Amino acid sequence: MKVKLINYTPEPEKTVAAAAYTCHSKECAEIDEMNDEKIRKIIRATRSSGHHSVMEHAGFTFAVDGISRACTHQLVRHRIASFSQQSQRYVNLGEPDYVIPETVEKKNETRKTFEKTMKDVWDTYKRLVKNGIPDEDARYVLPNAAKTSIVITMNARELYYFFSLRCCNRAQWEIRDMANKMLKQVKRVAPVLFEEAGPRCKQLGYCPEMESCGLMPRKKDVLKEGK
Amino acid sequence: MKVKLINYTPEPEKTVAAAAYTCHSKECAEIDEMNDEKIRKIIRATRSSGHHSVMEHAGFTFAVDGISRACTHQLVRHRIASFSQQSQRYVNLGEPDYVIPETVEKKNETRKTFEKTMKDVWDTYKRLVKNGIPDEDARYVLPNAAKTSIVITMNARELYYFFSLRCCNRAQWEIRDMANKMLKQVKRVAPVLFEEAGPRCKQLGYCPEMESCGLMPRKKDVLKEGK
Amino acid sequence: MKVKLINYTPEPEKTVAAAAYTCHSKECAEIDEMNDEKIRKIIRATRSSGHHSVMEHAGFTFAVDGISRACTHQLVRHRIASFSQQSQRYVNLGEPDYVIPETVEKKNETRKTFEKTMKDVWDTYKRLVKNGIPDEDARYVLPNAAKTSIVITMNARELYYFFSLRCCNRAQWEIRDMANKMLKQVKRVAPVLFEEAGPRCKQLGYCPEMESCGLMPRKKDVLKEGK
Amino acid sequence: MKVKLINYTPEPEKTVAAAAYTCHSKECAEIDEMNDEKIRKIIRATRSSGHHSVMEHAGFTFAVDGISRACTHQLVRHRIASFSQQSQRYVNLGEPDYVIPETVEKKNETRKTFEKTMKDVWDTYKRLVKNGIPDEDARYVLPNAAKTSIVITMNARELYYFFSLRCCNRAQWEIRDMANKMLKQVKRVAPVLFEEAGPRCKQLGYCPEMESCGLMPRKKDVLKEGK
Repeated sequence: MKVKLINYTPEPEKTVAAAAYTCHSKECAEIDEMNDEKIRKIIRATRSSGHHSVMEHAGFTFAVDGISRACTHQLVRHRIASFSQQSQRYVNLGEPDYVIPETVEKKNETRKTFEKTMKDVWDTYKRLVKNGIPDEDARYVLPNAAKTSIVITMNARELYYFFSLRCCNRAQWEIRDMANKMLKQVKRVAPVLFEEAGPRCKQLGYCPEMESCGLMPRKKDVLKEGK
Repeated sequence: MKVKLINYTPEPEKTVAAAAYTCHSKECAEIDEMNDEKIRKIIRATRSSGHHSVMEHAGFTFAVDGISRACTHQLVRHRIASFSQQSQRYVNLGEPDYVIPETVEKKNETRKTFEKTMKDVWDTYKRLVKNGIPDEDARYVLPNAAKTSIVITMNARELYYFFSLRCCNRAQWEIRDMANKMLKQVKRVAPVLFEEAGPRCKQLGYCPEMESCGLMPRKKDVLKEGK
Repeated sequence: MKVKLINYTPEPEKTVAAAAYTCHSKECAEIDEMNDEKIRKIIRATRSSGHHSVMEHAGFTFAVDGISRACTHQLVRHRIASFSQQSQRYVNLGEPDYVIPETVEKKNETRKTFEKTMKDVWDTYKRLVKNGIPDEDARYVLPNAAKTSIVITMNARELYYFFSLRCCNRAQWEIRDMANKMLKQVKRVAPVLFEEAGPRCKQLGYCPEMESCGLMPRKKDVLKEGK
Repeated sequence: MKVKLINYTPEPEKTVAAAAYTCHSKECAEIDEMNDEKIRKIIRATRSSGHHSVMEHAGFTFAVDGISRACTHQLVRHRIASFSQQSQRYVNLGEPDYVIPETVEKKNETRKTFEKTMKDVWDTYKRLVKNGIPDEDARYVLPNAAKTSIVITMNARELYYFFSLRCCNRAQWEIRDMANKMLKQVKRVAPVLFEEAGPRCKQLGYCPEMESCGLMPRKKDVLKEGK
């Protein structure tokens, strides 16, 4: 999997701070009036008071190659986001190209079975196309494992939410891997904005899942009145 | 494929008409003040003046069984909608159960190739699970063709938009089939509300696609100033 | 202010439970297979595991009369909702009709000042209209306090979020009043679905605000590692 | 009114073209592979085929000062957008500062009446605050005309939709003025992307309103089968 932050709102932290400032001022704040200390102060105060909407003014665009369609089917369920994905209707996927789960790969036997099936599947795909079946129908044999490419744009607020679900140790491994790579890259360009981003337990102070991975104590163990 | 309208806002047309009426009245309209003729008149006037948001007050819920994951991957790209889909992470899909495209089915040779591959794929799936691979990883071999179930809720405005894209003869056949079945059912319970629903060309008066299916003339042939 | 639940998805709890059940079944669940105990169990399990999207299949529509435009300007900032509001462009608002805040009303002096100004404002409005100014321009003199009517549709998930913000004791009093009235009414028709709805502190187990109203302890006082 | 494009996705047209290209390629396109001619060709083909979602990858942020709250109440009804607005709950609006409609201003008599009322209203506002009424309640007397500031972020697809409604000659004059100022500025930085942006009739080839302003012929006059 290759995850690359290809574009983002310039000066995302200044932009968010200027928007937050506007809510409490006589006029729209000038982006350039914001210095580092002011930015840090405004962003932290805004976040801790739960005033998250100002984070929406900073957008981030990623190009992702080599993830499975199993993963993108989950990914595109996030609705406050924009996606442009490689089409299997219009792109012919000639040669086997797929994601193999680690649990399958690490055992010789399961890996071989998996690889053999992938080869057979792609042989069938190619035979169908050769027999005049349109690409868009031949692709019905292709597996969830098939690699795909996708361009993703999300704003900082939605990224926070995305990370809170998908960086959790109980999330599905492939989307968690992608989410962690995305988080690392946005932290590089907006460290204050994303300083508390990560699994939900980090923001809540406890694990909200039924079964905890152990990173944080469970809600009921932390709160006296917890359920 | 089985498509069933399982629930919807009671008296959807009265509800939409009452909401539309509110926008031009001193008070919220009473739903029961609306009679058939009034409803018809208000809904038509609202629609032809492009005031579509009032249609959002009527929601429709469908249960769909037996569609492919190729189709649902496309479906869930609609973001102004709510979906609850069978999870391949948590449900073991023991026996082969898949959608076979008509182009593949109608030729003896391609059908046999397809069916043989499906059998092999499910054999691998079962072998992997038997070898201790978790369901959520074994499913990577499963095909786009694998059948799934999904509950869909959309409001009438979004349904209009959905039908305008997906009832088009150039839409992918499986999602078009589903859209047509949905349209037929909502028309039964809200005939005035959906009387102009269907492919986009019906609303526009011309085909906006690059290549027309022939149902309607193309934009440039209809409009003198058309491009 | 008059708040009336005028419509909602029939059997909202059965619908949500059936949708949740579908995610873990071979087929879409039949709504009528759901009995009371099953519904209660499924809804609670789904909620406590954070799987909130299934609540979106139940929608609720309210007619609200007699709230101020100060309040609706705040209300329509909720974007996952549908609104149809009385238009000041097209409805002539002949006579003074406004909301008076309790702080203003309880003191004789401030109340009189306020009422006098309201009368003057409406006199100007009427004079402008009489002088040929279109309603849509004359309304520029009308106050935030002017009463308006609005039809609101939200799904149960968004209602949870709405209540979590707007039932908080620190929310603006008019929108809080409206939210509490809405909550009372949806609880009547879907008591299990909304049993944990209310201010955010109820769900979190602590107050996330900078200054607490005292209903719940603050985050930092509850969590050892809290910030 | 002061409208200023304060930020946007760098190289918006390259970004959109790269996203569009990805849908039909084996891999995510590199932004820098895109040259001017390729960009123009891809963006035009994408737009004319109705594949609008790729435009969502380019976002634009505006700071707007000096518009009325009548106008922002309408503006924030656009739900696929992000807003940060000056709060009348937290900002004291000491001195009269308001928008005066042209129809009111151009007649001596109506202008004077209007200005006098504005003065009185602000006097009451100040008197209430002085009497201990909180800002958030005193603001109930303030008019729709009161000036406010707002930061707006929309993506290019939503801007197209926004312009299609709000640049129409039949739109309310203040929001139309704002929309036209926004359009002029985005055209400067993304001329190909926005080359067809403007009132809906420009895209449709006819006027969809009940009564046309005359800019374009009406639907029924253009289409033989038109209604």
